[in-house]
Amino acid sequence: TYHLLLDHYSSPRNVGSMDKTLNDVGTGLVGAPACGDVMKLQIKVDPETDTISDVKFKTFGCGSAIASSSYLTELVRGMTLEDAGKIRNTEIARELCLPPVKLHCSMLAEDAIKSAISNYYTKN
Amino acid sequence: TYHLLLDHYSSPRNVGSMDKTLNDVGTGLVGAPACGDVMKLQIKVDPETDTISDVKFKTFGCGSAIASSSYLTELVRGMTLEDAGKIRNTEIARELCLPPVKLHCSMLAEDAIKSAISNYYTKN
Ligand code: FES
Repeated sequence: TYHLLLDHYSSPRNVGSMDKTLNDVGTGLVGAPACGDVMKLQIKVDPETDTISDVKFKTFGCGSAIASSSYLTELVRGMTLEDAGKIRNTEIARELCLPPVKLHCSMLAEDAIKSAISNYYTKN
Repeated sequence: TYHLLLDHYSSPRNVGSMDKTLNDVGTGLVGAPACGDVMKLQIKVDPETDTISDVKFKTFGCGSAIASSSYLTELVRGMTLEDAGKIRNTEIARELCLPPVKLHCSMLAEDAIKSAISNYYTKN
């Protein structure tokens, strides 16, 4: 809903950073060609179960990018890496009622989680 | 400087709204085609001197758009409408060290002040 969009924009969840040198932390750093904005998203993974135990993000992007990634962080916490890798930006955009012109902002969130997962796999 | 950019991004100045029905308030509402972001900027004008006595903005835009408009609000306060209408986005971009891909964000600030000034003139 639009209310959810404004709520995540004005009180973004899980903003922050983790130590990217840790073995159980995967870091994704991606950019949106459409607007030049960047997003960093990090996941902490429980290696026993391959589930995401913690997640943090930082962005210099717009309100829709902030809301998309804040929403995504709540969604992926507790998920397996496999399930988290299947999240589509269209799902995020639908939940937050993003207008078509802001689809690339939710794409930033999808790209970031994929990049964080692949960084984790590269390290482990 | 880059420090100025981060400072205005993390502590934006003059965020807010004014009553747009007031005669001495000019409202500019503009959009950036490149990213779909919008910006509202309002000026309060002293009709005796044609100077800007107060200014507020709101945006759903990215960090660079927030910083550009926050910087602009500090710049135009106390300026005559004529001088404020001459501000160029390249000036803002230079002061904040915006990269070329973010020039459209500072353009949003230039467009917004021009639109607010012309709205004031239309009303008065
Ligand atoms: S406009 Fe750049 S991320 Fe939304």
